Amino acid sequence: MTGPARTGERDVIAHIDLGPDEKAYPGIQGPLRFRPETARPLGELAEVLLRAPHPTLTPGERELIAAYVSGLNDCDFCCSSHAAFAAAQLPTGMEFVDQVRADVATAPVDAKLRALLHIAAAVRRSGREVTTELVEAARAEGATDLEIHDTVLIAAAFCMFNRYVDGLGTWTPQDPEAYARAADHLVANGYLAI
Amino acid sequence: MTGPARTGERDVIAHIDLGPDEKAYPGIQGPLRFRPETARPLGELAEVLLRAPHPTLTPGERELIAAYVSGLNDCDFCCSSHAAFAAAQLPTGMEFVDQVRADVATAPVDAKLRALLHIAAAVRRSGREVTTELVEAARAEGATDLEIHDTVLIAAAFCMFNRYVDGLGTWTPQDPEAYARAADHLVANGYLAI
Repeated sequence: MTGPARTGERDVIAHIDLGPDEKAYPGIQGPLRFRPETARPLGELAEVLLRAPHPTLTPGERELIAAYVSGLNDCDFCCSSHAAFAAAQLPTGMEFVDQVRADVATAPVDAKLRALLHIAAAVRRSGREVTTELVEAARAEGATDLEIHDTVLIAAAFCMFNRYVDGLGTWTPQDPEAYARAADHLVANGYLAI
Repeated sequence: MTGPARTGERDVIAHIDLGPDEKAYPGIQGPLRFRPETARPLGELAEVLLRAPHPTLTPGERELIAAYVSGLNDCDFCCSSHAAFAAAQLPTGMEFVDQVRADVATAPVDAKLRALLHIAAAVRRSGREVTTELVEAARAEGATDLEIHDTVLIAAAFCMFNRYVDGLGTWTPQDPEAYARAADHLVANGYLAI
């Protein structure tokens, strides 16, 4: 999905002109810089959903839901980013994140989080796919209304973020080290500093 | 998708407990009241994307994109709401909105907006479906980078809002008058007053 150069000799990657240094601001960073008016609420939404104090879900668990949904949506930038953010904040690290992404049913994840991931996968397909059965299964494992709400909104939000990043054809780094560095920055500074 | 009553005799509609007066706050309004921390950035995002001053796209045109995507996602509450919001702000009214929703290719919509709606439909399927060809077709009709960016983000955002509303199984009024009244309120007061 490489667009033709529109401004002189520069090799344009994205569908819109994100400036001569667009590779310095990969994935969502370019569009956030392009449109600061929408960047602010988007950053605040990510901060509240994924990092703000929560009575039961850790930041690592919430990032795991984000990474899982992004993987199902084939959004390489978001999946690599949030998998790194999850791994950096979960004691079980990247191997566990990869196991969940590969197969939720067999991954060594606790029963409540597994049920929440099943709800997230349904949301990704369509809001209408979230059945009473899926919700009751999560509730049977101890899931609260807040956990169900936040799981639905995290999954829904990443159906937005994934489409925003890929729909504008932004640059996706291939080097895993780039995502590990981004994770260090995110854990230290949060989404409002991106 | 009616859940079982969990709190005494009350007839619970949504997947989570939105309070005894949940029918007074239909669609997204219940979840927004349930979680004010996420409601704030969600409201700000809608306000900036759909109503803030824009150099070229009117609020009615932006609401039309929102209604179109919500219809494709089968989200009755969002589609009825944003179709009413579009009709209230477009000189061509609800008949035009219905024509666009029925068939973008034959609706009496100007060529640039038609091309942007084609991009929105691609975003709805997947960000990866936005091709250079779709973007260049919009550009050939005069679409700017800002219009392409905002179309992608509006379509992506409604892939979130639609899933948020339906994923929690919220109440959807059937009376068209309810949406017309909501449109009057929205046009007068904006998204931050919802």
